[in-house]
Amino acid sequence: MRYFTDYRDHVGSSPTRFFKTTLFQSPRILVGMDCLEPGQSQEAHVHTGRDKCYFVIEGTGTFTIGEETCKVSEDMVVWAPADVIHSVVNTGSQRLVMLIGMAPEPG
Amino acid sequence: MRYFTDYRDHVGSSPTRFFKTTLFQSPRILVGMDCLEPGQSQEAHVHTGRDKCYFVIEGTGTFTIGEETCKVSEDMVVWAPADVIHSVVNTGSQRLVMLIGMAPEPG
Repeated sequence: MRYFTDYRDHVGSSPTRFFKTTLFQSPRILVGMDCLEPGQSQEAHVHTGRDKCYFVIEGTGTFTIGEETCKVSEDMVVWAPADVIHSVVNTGSQRLVMLIGMAPEPG
Repeated sequence: MRYFTDYRDHVGSSPTRFFKTTLFQSPRILVGMDCLEPGQSQEAHVHTGRDKCYFVIEGTGTFTIGEETCKVSEDMVVWAPADVIHSVVNTGSQRLVMLIGMAPEPG
């Protein structure tokens, strides 16, 4: 099955840095997972010319996008527009699991 | 808050056709919701030059992407690549709620 997958088969962890993996990819978009253990973060950064969207599936965290800071939990959708600085930290006690899309893909 | 939303605030229904709405949009990507009542469908179609990805949040359905047919339920990610014919029908008894991304956006 090339076109179907369960996000739970792609959850992972890394002791040194947040975990990320790719589910689907084309020149137009990358669909993947970002998984952060408690205390792990994505430091403030920008994606030049690329929008990134996060969907929080499990866990809790705190995002900053531009001038907005928001606590997030499951069911929330987060939009990091191209060229806008953003960061996220897992402030909870369980893994923060997010489905992400980045367009165009970063390759 | 321009960059944060809860998908549950965007779920809806239409008696005549599946319900869709946009959460975030740029020239590069549209992020939205597709909601199908029991029995509703998206008939077979293609998006020329555009990839579409679905994440099933609630409900069950049957997708066909190209030659592959798959029953889906919550937690599944479905990839409809550009120019590949695809369809979906809500085969369950509750609303089928999906977060979608389309790149580039169809405007």
